[in-house]
Amino acid sequence: MSQTPSLGERLDGERFWADLQAQAEIGALQPRGLRRLALDENDNRARLWLIEQGQALGCHAFHDAMGNVFLRREGQEPGLSALLIGSHMDSQPSAGSYDGTLGVIAGLAVLRTLQEQDIEHARPIEVVAWTNEEGARFAPGASGSSWFAGQRDAATILEAHDDQGTRFADALAACLAELERHGASAFRPEPFVPHAFLELHIEQGPVLESLGVPVCAVSGIQGVNWYEIEVHGQANHAGTTPEAARRDAFMGAHALIGALRDAVAGQDDQVRFTAGKFSVSPGSTNTIPQRADFTIDLRHPSQAVLERLDTAFHELALRQWSGCDVSLRATSRVAPVSFDPALVELADSAAKSHSPDAPQLVSGAFHDAIHLARVCPTVMLFTPCRAGISHHPDEHIERSDAETAVRALAETVERLLNP
Amino acid sequence: MSQTPSLGERLDGERFWADLQAQAEIGALQPRGLRRLALDENDNRARLWLIEQGQALGCHAFHDAMGNVFLRREGQEPGLSALLIGSHMDSQPSAGSYDGTLGVIAGLAVLRTLQEQDIEHARPIEVVAWTNEEGARFAPGASGSSWFAGQRDAATILEAHDDQGTRFADALAACLAELERHGASAFRPEPFVPHAFLELHIEQGPVLESLGVPVCAVSGIQGVNWYEIEVHGQANHAGTTPEAARRDAFMGAHALIGALRDAVAGQDDQVRFTAGKFSVSPGSTNTIPQRADFTIDLRHPSQAVLERLDTAFHELALRQWSGCDVSLRATSRVAPVSFDPALVELADSAAKSHSPDAPQLVSGAFHDAIHLARVCPTVMLFTPCRAGISHHPDEHIERSDAETAVRALAETVERLLNP
Repeated sequence: MSQTPSLGERLDGERFWADLQAQAEIGALQPRGLRRLALDENDNRARLWLIEQGQALGCHAFHDAMGNVFLRREGQEPGLSALLIGSHMDSQPSAGSYDGTLGVIAGLAVLRTLQEQDIEHARPIEVVAWTNEEGARFAPGASGSSWFAGQRDAATILEAHDDQGTRFADALAACLAELERHGASAFRPEPFVPHAFLELHIEQGPVLESLGVPVCAVSGIQGVNWYEIEVHGQANHAGTTPEAARRDAFMGAHALIGALRDAVAGQDDQVRFTAGKFSVSPGSTNTIPQRADFTIDLRHPSQAVLERLDTAFHELALRQWSGCDVSLRATSRVAPVSFDPALVELADSAAKSHSPDAPQLVSGAFHDAIHLARVCPTVMLFTPCRAGISHHPDEHIERSDAETAVRALAETVERLLNP
Repeated sequence: MSQTPSLGERLDGERFWADLQAQAEIGALQPRGLRRLALDENDNRARLWLIEQGQALGCHAFHDAMGNVFLRREGQEPGLSALLIGSHMDSQPSAGSYDGTLGVIAGLAVLRTLQEQDIEHARPIEVVAWTNEEGARFAPGASGSSWFAGQRDAATILEAHDDQGTRFADALAACLAELERHGASAFRPEPFVPHAFLELHIEQGPVLESLGVPVCAVSGIQGVNWYEIEVHGQANHAGTTPEAARRDAFMGAHALIGALRDAVAGQDDQVRFTAGKFSVSPGSTNTIPQRADFTIDLRHPSQAVLERLDTAFHELALRQWSGCDVSLRATSRVAPVSFDPALVELADSAAKSHSPDAPQLVSGAFHDAIHLARVCPTVMLFTPCRAGISHHPDEHIERSDAETAVRALAETVERLLNP
């Protein structure tokens, strides 16, 4: 008698890839890429498409007050809390079609396998597509997952406006009305506490590709501090003002950034330091800048390291730089998350069964999982994307990597469906 | 028998100051400051005001094809070439009322003294107000003086547009029509070669104020090279991209600017190095910059030094910086000017007769004199402005300094009027 094939082995890789390509049509850019901003027409069409796929399978479909969509397959013991897998389907303005959606379609592939092959399992399973993970249209992102996990209240989320002045509340109301009109899914008034949450996502970084590894477990998410720094100097004529009489805000910022970098350079190689915005005013070739404004994005997996660097940054900002005064403000602090060790172990073992060299990575990007990890055991899996590129039409994954990753996800799911 | 008082001593300081205040009404900003953009309504009113003052004195008034205005007093030997003194009356958008206009009103004060006190002199004298020195509305500036000196041709100047799309040619035509309508001045079809050109100007820098010196001679104008630098990196996610995998255009620019500064730091303290514009794209807090663009304004009185630094800059731009490629382009090169040594000596001696500690400065700013120096012996005098501030409503001069400066100018003029 041969061994029963695993859920991963039974999964139809061809159909999974076809689903991925089908969803990529909804909001496709020419000649390639995707634009599916949260709660826009394409994002709502993607919801309906997902619901149709689930209902055609014979699964229940739900949506909640935040527009999150769930497809449910009952277990033999419906009283057990459901295992939740998924990600998001909204995109950046000029994006690829795998960021987020890969995780939803992977969940759908698992659901198809269970349903079509009539596989019995004790625990219910749900596939979720969270609303507005990207935050590209309405900031901040992760609206659906943070609300679901009780990390942000609806009132705050509903207040957001997009660049055209459209309120999140109004865009959401239109989305919910559309779902009602299609009678496609049942309304679920309250969040529930899942048994666990699994999210497969593209790495959005270069590590797996460089290692030649198709899938790995993710042990947590880096903490992130954002800073806005103002450097105040004195505008003056570039020709008539001797060096000694200058208070050049650009040169002040240049020196300060050098010092901030030096503070960070003493750290291990897991630290990330990025000055993503930088501007000077008045911004004239022959005028010494009066003011420089820049941002720092600082990341590390350890909260203690972030706190130590935060103190160092504030101390450096107390000094004058090239005669200029500095104001430094932390505009956002998100603590690092460590995923559930037992789940990480499970996902890691599934990944290593396909690729013995699979590392455990710490995610440098935010994901919906950061919020779910506050309420239930959570883990992520990563699969490589070419050159680490994402948030860009050039985002690309190899079919063979993605198939291996979805099988590893299915094998992790399998271990959790029967207590 | 007492010594004859000098032309400077005979000059009416009260009237000079009153003229300065009167012109400051034309285009005055509230609560202070001046907006008199080249060839706008206020700039044209200032021309008419100047012509009226000259004609009321009994002088001849002329304008030329570029809208430059001249007031002429004949000498005993009208065949001699005229001594020319003056500056400009247009301003930056939010300026003070002394930059440029001081030199025109100083010329008018000299003319008043000669005319009202019926002082005879062999050589004709003219006071000039040049069109569009600032270049704030129509770039580049010094239109009137560069054309007069044969350094730029009219066709090129007339092509310029302002931000509203108005052509220089059309604004100039309206100005000339206004002058014709008032029948205020005679048209002078051709430039002439002056005997010499003298320009009194505020320093627009902090040196004279710090020395407590009211007036000094200017021995030349710094040369200026302008550079536009592009740094090309790779946009990537700030969280997911390890240091070793980054090509961060901001960090490339940061390192390159450090190296450019180091190259300049080896020079004497007459060098001026300014990064006045700086931008990054895409300019998102959590995205590694794809590209950084900045400008360098580099000045020095020695052409040899500028050429050496230019070579060093181009060599540095050939390297990669933080893995980024660099493109560096010199967008403008203006060679330094040394004023006529005999005239510098004359102006210096007049300045030192009032203030023995008067230095000889090299101008860090451009002036109309840079063009006149190509066609006739030229010199400038500087008087301090508070804190070196100019191109700003806070621009301020002390009346006593300005009076001393105009007397020193008059004494220099006096030595040139009789061969």
